[in-house]
Amino acid sequence: MRRALQLAGNGPAEGVNPRVGCVILSPAGEVLAEGWHRGAGTCHAEVDALAQLDADAARGATAVVTLEPCNHTGRTGPCALALIEAGVGNVVYAVADPGPHSSGGAARLRAAGIDVAGGLLADEVEAFLADWLISARLGRPFVTVKWASSLDGRAAAADGSSRWITGPAARQDVHERRARADAILVGTGTALADDPSLTARAADGALLPHQPRPVVVGCRPVPADAAVRRHPLTPWFIPGHDVAALLRELHERGIRRVFVEGGPTVASAFVRAGLVDEYLIYLAPTLLGGDKLALGDIGVAGIDGQLRLRISELQYLGEDILLVARPAGADETSPIDQTDQTTRATPAETS
Amino acid sequence: MRRALQLAGNGPAEGVNPRVGCVILSPAGEVLAEGWHRGAGTCHAEVDALAQLDADAARGATAVVTLEPCNHTGRTGPCALALIEAGVGNVVYAVADPGPHSSGGAARLRAAGIDVAGGLLADEVEAFLADWLISARLGRPFVTVKWASSLDGRAAAADGSSRWITGPAARQDVHERRARADAILVGTGTALADDPSLTARAADGALLPHQPRPVVVGCRPVPADAAVRRHPLTPWFIPGHDVAALLRELHERGIRRVFVEGGPTVASAFVRAGLVDEYLIYLAPTLLGGDKLALGDIGVAGIDGQLRLRISELQYLGEDILLVARPAGADETSPIDQTDQTTRATPAETS
Repeated sequence: MRRALQLAGNGPAEGVNPRVGCVILSPAGEVLAEGWHRGAGTCHAEVDALAQLDADAARGATAVVTLEPCNHTGRTGPCALALIEAGVGNVVYAVADPGPHSSGGAARLRAAGIDVAGGLLADEVEAFLADWLISARLGRPFVTVKWASSLDGRAAAADGSSRWITGPAARQDVHERRARADAILVGTGTALADDPSLTARAADGALLPHQPRPVVVGCRPVPADAAVRRHPLTPWFIPGHDVAALLRELHERGIRRVFVEGGPTVASAFVRAGLVDEYLIYLAPTLLGGDKLALGDIGVAGIDGQLRLRISELQYLGEDILLVARPAGADETSPIDQTDQTTRATPAETS
Repeated sequence: MRRALQLAGNGPAEGVNPRVGCVILSPAGEVLAEGWHRGAGTCHAEVDALAQLDADAARGATAVVTLEPCNHTGRTGPCALALIEAGVGNVVYAVADPGPHSSGGAARLRAAGIDVAGGLLADEVEAFLADWLISARLGRPFVTVKWASSLDGRAAAADGSSRWITGPAARQDVHERRARADAILVGTGTALADDPSLTARAADGALLPHQPRPVVVGCRPVPADAAVRRHPLTPWFIPGHDVAALLRELHERGIRRVFVEGGPTVASAFVRAGLVDEYLIYLAPTLLGGDKLALGDIGVAGIDGQLRLRISELQYLGEDILLVARPAGADETSPIDQTDQTTRATPAETS
């Protein structure tokens, strides 16, 4: 399974489909074939592995796969069926498929007389697929909210100037993380004030191979010569302020990971709605004072309503600090609890 | 010298006098005696070491001392004279005495025919005595400004509630650092709002052996039953808003290390005046939003006027993060530059 997880890592992090790896073992435990999923429209990992074998070579073999084999006919046929037709004797998987259309593979395999076991290395695979699983379970993209601020929580100086608070290493880190998202989202306020290109770029300014879809939300018109209109992917302009509705729409359009980059109004709206899965906070060793805060009203009235986070990563990037955090308790909640979280409009208050 | 520095560490960190250590070596390099300074009114380190030897035992010996021997008669006589009278042949010290009244010891020793060398392990001793040296060079206390905030820079929730943002480990760390200061300073706003006792306490609530002097600044009256009036040391109430004048007064009253604990108005006044030597920022993994900021107006108009810091320490305290920082460039500045820094009213601006 560890090898299957390694293979899964060969696939593209972005996109609609999960990264899955598969190893086919002979009854004696020898590796017969390996496969992984290369992205939407290409073979699933199981089929990728089976394709390397002669017709009867997988008969009685064991398929080790990171995600429960799918039971769904999309652009490719159901993997469960492919495994049954290949005559595989055993299937071992890590994490159950949460998809409403694709789950049920294990049951179908068992019905065909195949020995099926789930849960092997489930924690590791769960962590590896965290964003895709959250997206599949909740029917909305995995939401990363990023901001850069001074140590006193300001995103800009009093006059609005902010280039640059953080240094080159932190800014490059942002670009690399943009490239792992399906979409990058800003409000019209930021689009108008900063005229960002919303591309993912290398240190030398060249475009990285994968570009996130630029999404501009809000009601103000964005000029015809805005930098975002020169993005290699056509920008989506989505009016309105309902964050939950916005996420549903993005999910329907195939977005599984959205990178929310600002500004404070948009970031605060996601926080207030309880719709943030991951926080990236870049702290620059500087003080700014003034009223240009990185985060505004998030609906917390009293200390008992505070939004507690759990810091999962703390590192220096040059002189800056990157702090990666998730909502406290997000690890322990069940899929149902997580759904509850997304519908919670404002946190508890005591005043 | 490393041993002398170790010995210096035996002395009390707080108080008017520096922590100094001394080792007397025979011409053959054997340790004859060791000494350190135990606090104001007691022997200086050199005299403490010499006192352990018979009248002629130090004749021709080498005295290794962390700070240039003083040339000042206070409650004790000048150490330079004591070394001359003991017949010491060589004196090696690390850092020159910056005191206007106490310096000149090296010259006096040389005039008496003693071989004197300064600068050995100077960087380490300089770091060890940083707060005392800054105080001696600038004629004001070493200023530590501490605040605790959420990751979005708030010191309290919108309704003012703030107990507790940080956890027990962070709060205990504050108490231990309070105990290393000569004075702990708050504004009348904080004294009235939080009614703090301003004592340094152990985890079980017991008073730590050394207590900082409680200082309350500002013009509003503090009630007769305020907790600070039950502090083991009589509180000082100092009216007015001139931070530089306040520090001069504290220095005259013998304060060498002041711990500024709040609230935001007082902290911002010190930052705005450029009179902060050390920042202690306790960051709790939580978001609060609202307008109760840990730091207010610090006189920065544009990004070019930002107050850059250098982070010297970053550690977890329970779930919280402690960030210790100094003004960027503070290490490299000469005493004269540091004096300039203290007189700079507001940082440069470009708008």
